[in-house]
Amino acid sequence: MRTLIANANEAVGNEVYIEGWVHRIRELKSVTFIIIRDRSGLIQCVFEGKPDWLETLKLESVVKISGMVKSASNKYGSVEILGNQLEILVAVQSDLPIQINGRTLDIQLDTMLNNRVLSLRHERNQAVFRLQAMIVSGFRAFLNGEGFLEMFTPKIVKEGAEGGSEIFKLDYFGERAFLAQSPQFYKQMMVISGFERVYEVGSVYRAEQHSTNRHLNEYVSMDFEMGFIRDEEEVMEMEENLLKSLFLKLKTEGETLFETLEVQCPEVPDRIPRIKMSEAVEILREHYGRIDLEGDLDPQGERQIAAFIKEKYNSEFVFITHYPRRKRPMYTMYCNEEETNSFDLLFRGLEITTGGQRIHELDKLVENMKFKGVEPEQYKSYLEAFKYGAPTHGGLAIGLERLTAQIIGMPNIREASLFPRDQQRLIP
Amino acid sequence: MRTLIANANEAVGNEVYIEGWVHRIRELKSVTFIIIRDRSGLIQCVFEGKPDWLETLKLESVVKISGMVKSASNKYGSVEILGNQLEILVAVQSDLPIQINGRTLDIQLDTMLNNRVLSLRHERNQAVFRLQAMIVSGFRAFLNGEGFLEMFTPKIVKEGAEGGSEIFKLDYFGERAFLAQSPQFYKQMMVISGFERVYEVGSVYRAEQHSTNRHLNEYVSMDFEMGFIRDEEEVMEMEENLLKSLFLKLKTEGETLFETLEVQCPEVPDRIPRIKMSEAVEILREHYGRIDLEGDLDPQGERQIAAFIKEKYNSEFVFITHYPRRKRPMYTMYCNEEETNSFDLLFRGLEITTGGQRIHELDKLVENMKFKGVEPEQYKSYLEAFKYGAPTHGGLAIGLERLTAQIIGMPNIREASLFPRDQQRLIP
Repeated sequence: MRTLIANANEAVGNEVYIEGWVHRIRELKSVTFIIIRDRSGLIQCVFEGKPDWLETLKLESVVKISGMVKSASNKYGSVEILGNQLEILVAVQSDLPIQINGRTLDIQLDTMLNNRVLSLRHERNQAVFRLQAMIVSGFRAFLNGEGFLEMFTPKIVKEGAEGGSEIFKLDYFGERAFLAQSPQFYKQMMVISGFERVYEVGSVYRAEQHSTNRHLNEYVSMDFEMGFIRDEEEVMEMEENLLKSLFLKLKTEGETLFETLEVQCPEVPDRIPRIKMSEAVEILREHYGRIDLEGDLDPQGERQIAAFIKEKYNSEFVFITHYPRRKRPMYTMYCNEEETNSFDLLFRGLEITTGGQRIHELDKLVENMKFKGVEPEQYKSYLEAFKYGAPTHGGLAIGLERLTAQIIGMPNIREASLFPRDQQRLIP
Repeated sequence: MRTLIANANEAVGNEVYIEGWVHRIRELKSVTFIIIRDRSGLIQCVFEGKPDWLETLKLESVVKISGMVKSASNKYGSVEILGNQLEILVAVQSDLPIQINGRTLDIQLDTMLNNRVLSLRHERNQAVFRLQAMIVSGFRAFLNGEGFLEMFTPKIVKEGAEGGSEIFKLDYFGERAFLAQSPQFYKQMMVISGFERVYEVGSVYRAEQHSTNRHLNEYVSMDFEMGFIRDEEEVMEMEENLLKSLFLKLKTEGETLFETLEVQCPEVPDRIPRIKMSEAVEILREHYGRIDLEGDLDPQGERQIAAFIKEKYNSEFVFITHYPRRKRPMYTMYCNEEETNSFDLLFRGLEITTGGQRIHELDKLVENMKFKGVEPEQYKSYLEAFKYGAPTHGGLAIGLERLTAQIIGMPNIREASLFPRDQQRLIP
């Protein structure tokens, strides 16, 4: 049976075989080193002299190497393999378009994405997506413990949740349908259906025309929604505890990933600072001379507020609360004519969460639709859900790629997506 | 703080309050029983006489009840609440269109789906989707333990995986795009990217025109793919072990769900029988007089083979292997001119899994595309992945709703989808 490289240290003195990719070839005078990579790591294999296959062997070929495991001390670990035999299972015919065995992948983003299958083999990218899977798993683990149910809802929808023109349209057996901008309506319906607490990790779609380093047209949204809440503060507390649990998991289980990525696991403060949007605007006016903002922050404003909060409270996270009613979707609960029971969470100067309390009373919801210029007739099946006992509820959505990118400190969100979708990129 | 109904038995002798839906109202001469439901269960609340609110209280209203917990023994459990006060938090104004507090939901499927938010409140439906979440969680837990990585891949694609006309089209910023019929290409790319073992639980789309009780146009696919395999037999062994682990989890953690659903947790045999497609056709000819089948089974044939296997091997599962090359997609490895290294898994007479080994050599893949009448030019970015060392690999996909429906014994797969999508149904 194939020995995984990570398990080779348990086989010192034994004959084994490994299978993997040729990561590096190093020819010395009397000895040849072949570094092999599999999903579990790297190992050095030592062959005497210049074997026959050496001339034809190309990097990244898939090979099988048999030999004896022996203790060693080199940059790849504490064992190596004295190679007996190397069999080329799948030969690579040409040179590689990008170099993937260096410490960093020194290439442009476009080149990286155009050569995605190869660039993902770089240890840094392997670490990125192993960390991403760990984030999702931590998200689920915490919510399962809090009595949330995982749900799966359709992405082909008739009633768009967020409204606006930024929605992909498709023909559904002759009917006009959309790709869901969020599972918003469905998670509300599920709360009302008696499940009370639900979550979903799934694709969402935004047909946004602008191309920035923080937007994708298809991304993974981690959504939850909870019923019987007092107000949006309970949702924020739930997120605070979620983040604490999640980052503890990352710190513990992801230690080697952070080492590979050469970053520290972020710290969640005991209490994440909360400031009202109106206060944030005031701070920006006073401390940054921003007289151009009203009721919302632009990307620069987000970074400025983050810097202010970091300085004052030593926190990389901040909740901005009470967004104006005219800036939030029609389902957002409002506490007065101007302000809503809503919040965003900024992490290192970027919004990674949008959430809030929702309107749970049918009349109020219809009235707010009209206030927002939305036609209630367009949302019949959604409104129907509020007829037979909808409790108070609220929830939030965390963008998975944004969170990943911010943890790692990536300049562009596309690096945090395996196969990103933007206006220019539909393949691979 | 609100006491969850399931935790009330820890509060005997204490004053508590609960919040939930009015499940049932029972008026006796000198006492009124209100049965309350929350996400954790049901409880009986006892009020003296006929309280003021009784006349206006409708079923499914959201209420808060304060009172003393006391030991009891009734059909709802071992405690009840001596009600002090009932506050209607959200009133229901009208009678319910369907009755949801009976032992069964005695309504047509269409009525159930048209009133989805209400019908999901029935305890049987609550159990269905709690079981479904448990299935997914068991799928992930097993694969995580086997070194698989969870991945998230785009559903808006340019290169369709399965081909054919049964694919939804959409306009993607002026370019023609499709909704993914499966994550097939992406999971192969991820194996080749060095992750070796990957899985995804996500939506897939089939624009199939026919309407049956076992098809949905959008469903959840549980996919995995693994590299460095000997042949498809290794994939089947992985599924066998996955199913054993999964059903053990369901049996242990899902005991009360199975009781509510009034079904037994299925047993996975130590070894699932395997028969070749050619043998299956022979058996159907010999034992069922089916002379009309060649190289594939129709739904009746699947049920007949299942009955034969159940009789002969006492197994509700059977792998049908070696499907003909002309019946399988172009990426399927073939072992001779006629047969492929492929399999389906039938469970209780229905296909719940399709899998097999894939072609990992570029030349062979291009040649097989031509054999299948597929234009390699259409699959450029997919083919690109095979240039730089693609190991042997294979995998499978399990339909989540089908598996759920078969475990529970549902006549129609739509019952196993929260918000099913078919040609007639785009809402809710």
